[in-house]
Formats: sequence, structure tokens, C-alpha cells
Amino acid sequence: MKNINKITLKTKKSLTAKDYFDGIKKGNRALLSKAITLIESSNLKHQEIAEELIELCLPLSGNSVRIGITGVPGVGKSTFIEALGSYLIEEKGKQIAVLAIDPSSKKSHGSILGDKTRMNKLSVNDKAFIRPSPSSGTLGGVAKATRETTILCEAAGYDTILIETVGVGQSEIEVKSMVDFFLLLMLAGAGDELQGIKRGIMEIADAVVINKADSDNIDNAKMAVREYKNAMHLFPANDNGWIPKVESCSAIEDKNINKVWDIIESFTNHTIVNNSFSENRRKQSKFWLEHAINTSLMNLFYADEQIKNQLIDLEKSVSEGETSPFKAAKELIASFKS
Amino acid sequence: MKNINKITLKTKKSLTAKDYFDGIKKGNRALLSKAITLIESSNLKHQEIAEELIELCLPLSGNSVRIGITGVPGVGKSTFIEALGSYLIEEKGKQIAVLAIDPSSKKSHGSILGDKTRMNKLSVNDKAFIRPSPSSGTLGGVAKATRETTILCEAAGYDTILIETVGVGQSEIEVKSMVDFFLLLMLAGAGDELQGIKRGIMEIADAVVINKADSDNIDNAKMAVREYKNAMHLFPANDNGWIPKVESCSAIEDKNINKVWDIIESFTNHTIVNNSFSENRRKQSKFWLEHAINTSLMNLFYADEQIKNQLIDLEKSVSEGETSPFKAAKELIASFKS
Repeated sequence: MKNINKITLKTKKSLTAKDYFDGIKKGNRALLSKAITLIESSNLKHQEIAEELIELCLPLSGNSVRIGITGVPGVGKSTFIEALGSYLIEEKGKQIAVLAIDPSSKKSHGSILGDKTRMNKLSVNDKAFIRPSPSSGTLGGVAKATRETTILCEAAGYDTILIETVGVGQSEIEVKSMVDFFLLLMLAGAGDELQGIKRGIMEIADAVVINKADSDNIDNAKMAVREYKNAMHLFPANDNGWIPKVESCSAIEDKNINKVWDIIESFTNHTIVNNSFSENRRKQSKFWLEHAINTSLMNLFYADEQIKNQLIDLEKSVSEGETSPFKAAKELIASFKS
Repeated sequence: MKNINKITLKTKKSLTAKDYFDGIKKGNRALLSKAITLIESSNLKHQEIAEELIELCLPLSGNSVRIGITGVPGVGKSTFIEALGSYLIEEKGKQIAVLAIDPSSKKSHGSILGDKTRMNKLSVNDKAFIRPSPSSGTLGGVAKATRETTILCEAAGYDTILIETVGVGQSEIEVKSMVDFFLLLMLAGAGDELQGIKRGIMEIADAVVINKADSDNIDNAKMAVREYKNAMHLFPANDNGWIPKVESCSAIEDKNINKVWDIIESFTNHTIVNNSFSENRRKQSKFWLEHAINTSLMNLFYADEQIKNQLIDLEKSVSEGETSPFKAAKELIASFKS
């Protein structure tokens, strides 16, 4: 990561947004990588170039299927993405970009895709582009970077974007808001091993896929599929009329990966026909506009020195039940205005 | 509603926050009603008195169990609340306050509890206080009013607060954030009739209760309980260690209402022992402080005339994929700052 940044620093002065754009259009992976580093940079000059570049790329973006993939550590996400990506490249002639959102990486000093060797085949395939999770920044910032990276990747010709998250944090709603299809990876033997998944994620999944349906585990996986199918029909329907599907697969043995893809294809067909595919993307743009306004306003507010001092006392007083949260907020807003 | 406001206008000049407080403490229901009208009022003078009153009531508040009850129209919420409330008053010596959040009432020109006659027994019982949904205001405003009303009701001695929502809107997360226990009412025969419930609600419920388990419907209800129990064990566990329960009842025949209450009691015992009851309330206070700050900032922002004009163009441009939502937000924030 540090080396990449050094290269970028050396060459950035000579490169304009147009230079990056021309390179990206031609499929220059090194330039795509460097451009993403600009997106992730907190340097104002970098941000300016990145913004201009994104505007240039926007007209070329959007022609992909964006897929969110989540599941707790140990469920086999990397292996699954390796298997699905390879299948799509070899059997379907696709070009794959793999991105990751991992807000926990700040704490653990590691990121989901940091270890590229976990995707041996994909990482050396020139039809695949793998980008580790931004290793710094607020969750909002990481999500912004991922969404903008998607646009660059689409402009570079990648037609299938796989966005990986760990499924345990606050990021899933944000990921749900940047993908067309949301896939939840699970393991058979429901119960204890699912403790890590955040409540509410199951209900936003478009498909639940039971991974590691291999060797001794096949019967368990079949039973899990039955159980989840029963559970899924108790869930309320989606606005788009899609009924979430349940499937099992073995990523490590490359089994049933095609069936998972069939589900995603049938989803895109279904939603394109009933217009909800594009409607969903319009709603997502609106969500991100509101989200970005909201985030910026909050940043403005919490950066205010007077607010910072006041907040400490008021938070204490609210948490001890001495002041109503609404009255405390009113006082803070009054300070902010003056 | 109009008549109540008239009475308030006549008398408000002579009444101070202290007057209201003294009356509320003594259990004066008319004064409690009027005070809630002040909370709901957009008049600045009313708001000032309301704020002072809430600060006075805060030390007396908190000693209740706050229960959120949701379910689609037709599931029998009013009948259920009537049955549960009467049971608690008669068998458990409780005092009940029933509040409602119904953001849809603005559109439908009716509110959930507008028709008090749907709770014949409770509405004439002096151990019960029923307050219809505020019929105007933004959802944030309605939620604020409901949370503040809870404080007044607790200061007035009501030890069980039932907050009703329709389960189809945006309000459930807000309700979840103001109650200790969240109960989802459902009907047997899962499927079509559940279409109305918003996705994600099932996973935040502390209990699912299948209502109308009577006459021909008993077997269906038993099967539904089994199905939901199976589904529930697939859900990830709550942070507080509570495993959501499933029960059936017939509100209209007064059957099994005690079992529903047993669940709620076992929940409060469980969470008080492991400290999550008070921890949850502290988190909720923090949530409402942030929520109130957020709402106020957004109101400031969107009330700005220049922003309003700019927003129309930028929203269009974002939704048509010409501008990135993040760039649009940046422009708007720059205007706002200057």
C-alpha cells in the first residue's frame, strides 16, 4: 500500500483527470489503481482530480450488475468470490471487479481482502480486478470511496462488481444501498455460529447461500436450505416482487456456483422487466445524496470547538436522565447557529 | 381535537409549568391531557412551558415498562391492547397509558386511536389513559412528542406504557428506540396477509404473537407458532441475550393474554438481571440526542432558500446519473456555509 502511494505521489503531478480517464477507458489497470488511491486520499488536490475523473466516468458507468456479498468471518467469502468470479470469467465471459468494505479493519489492522493470496486464481486473472478495502477513513468515507470506485471500474469495462463485507458491523445498510443484489453467505447447522451476523441482515438478503455443502456436511446443508426456505416464506415480500431464494454450494469444490449465478440472473431479469432495477438505482442515488448531505452537516457540527465542549456535559446529563435529549439538542443547535 | 385546543388556549395563560407538574403528580388527567397538547403544539410559548414541564417530570420518570406493539391493520391491535390493558389493571394492579404513533394519519385523515370507542373498556377505566396519535407533524416530531408524552405519563404514575404503531411505515425503528420491549402482532396463515409488514421488523421483535387464535383458526394459529419458532431460531441472537418468543392468543376471547404478559415479565427480569435493561435506556437517550441534533441540522439546511432552489436541479442531475451524489452534496454544503 505504501509503495503504491509512493508511485502515485511521483506521477500524480503530471497526470490530469483526463489522463486517468483515457487510461481507464483503455483498461489500464495500473492507472485504475492509482485513480482509486486518489479517491481514497484525504489530500485536497487528489480529491479535486478524483471528482473531475468521476464526472468524466459517470456517463460510461452503470452497465454492470452490482452484487453485495456478506457473511461472518469463516463462512468462506474469499473462496466463494474466487469460485464465482472464475466461473463468470470462464463460462460467461464476464469481467469482474472485487471491492471490499471492512470498517473493522481500522481496529484489527487487517482488511478483508488485504491478503490477496486468498484469491489465487482471480488475483492473477486479467479479467479480474481486486481492490482491498480502504484501510482508513470513517465508515461513511469508506462507503463513498467504494461507491466511487464502482463507477471507475464500470467505466473501465468491468461488468460484474462484487462488493464484500463482513456482515457484523454497521455497513450492511450502506452496502445494500449501493448494490443491485444482496447475497448472504451462511453455514449449515444454524445456531451458535450465526451469532455474529447482525440482526436484520437476513431480511434484506435477496438470496441466502449455504456454503461448505461438501463431504460430511452435505446433509446438514440440505436441511439448512429447507429451514431457511421455510423461514423465508414467513418474511414479508419485497417491494420489487422478488422472493428471496435459498441455495447451497461448495465454493472450495466449485459445486453449485452456477446455480447461485442462475438466481442472480433471474433476479436481474425479474427486476429489469418490472422496472424496479432502474427504479432502485434512482432511489439509491437519492439515498446517497441525502446521506452525503447528512454526513457533511454532522461533520461541520461536531468539528465546532464550542459544540465539542458543550457536548461532553450534555451527553452526561442526558445519559443520567437529568436533561431531555431534545432540550440538549436544542441548546447545541442554538450554539451552532451563533 | 379542536375543542381540546380551545380549552387549552383559554386556560394556558394562567397555568405555569409548575401548575401542570403539580396536577400531573396528583393524577389530574385533564391537566395531563392539556400538557400533552402543549408538547404537540408548534406555538413557541407552548413549547417553552412544555420543555420546563418535561425537566420537572424527568426525575419522576423511568419507572415503567415501555412496550411497543405493532402489526398491520386488521391484525387486531386495538382489541389486543384492550385485552392486555384490562388484564394488567384487573389482575396485576397496573396503571396503563396507551399512546400511538401513526405517521400515515396525515394522509388518511384518521389515526389509529382516533376512534376511542374501539377500546370500550379501557377508555372508561380510570386506571387507563388513552392518547390518540398526534394528527400532524413530521415523523420525527411525532416520535419526539410520543417520547416526551411517555415522560409525563410516567410522572403521572402510569407504570405500563403501551405504544402502538401500524408496522408499515418508517416509524418502527424510532419506536424500537423508545421502548423496552417490542411486540409484533401477526395472524395465522403466513403469506399474503403479511405483505403489509415492512421487512426487517420481524428481526427486531422481542416477541411475535399470533392473534385471533380462536374458533376455526386455532389449528392454523398453532401451526403458525411452530413455523415462527422454527424461523426465530435461525435469527441471530440479541446483544442482551434474549431469545425472541412466539405465542398465540385470542384478544377478542381474552385467551392467553396472561401468557403474553408472562413473556414480557420474563424479558424484564432477564434484562434487569444482566443490566441490559438500563444499558438499553442509556443507549436510547444517546440515540435520541443524536437523532434530535440530526433532525434539527437537516431542518436548518432544507429551510435555506438558496439550498431549496439548488436542490431541485441537483436532485434531477443526480437521479439522471449526470452528477455524483457526493459532488452534489459538496456544492450544497458550500452554499450552506456561505
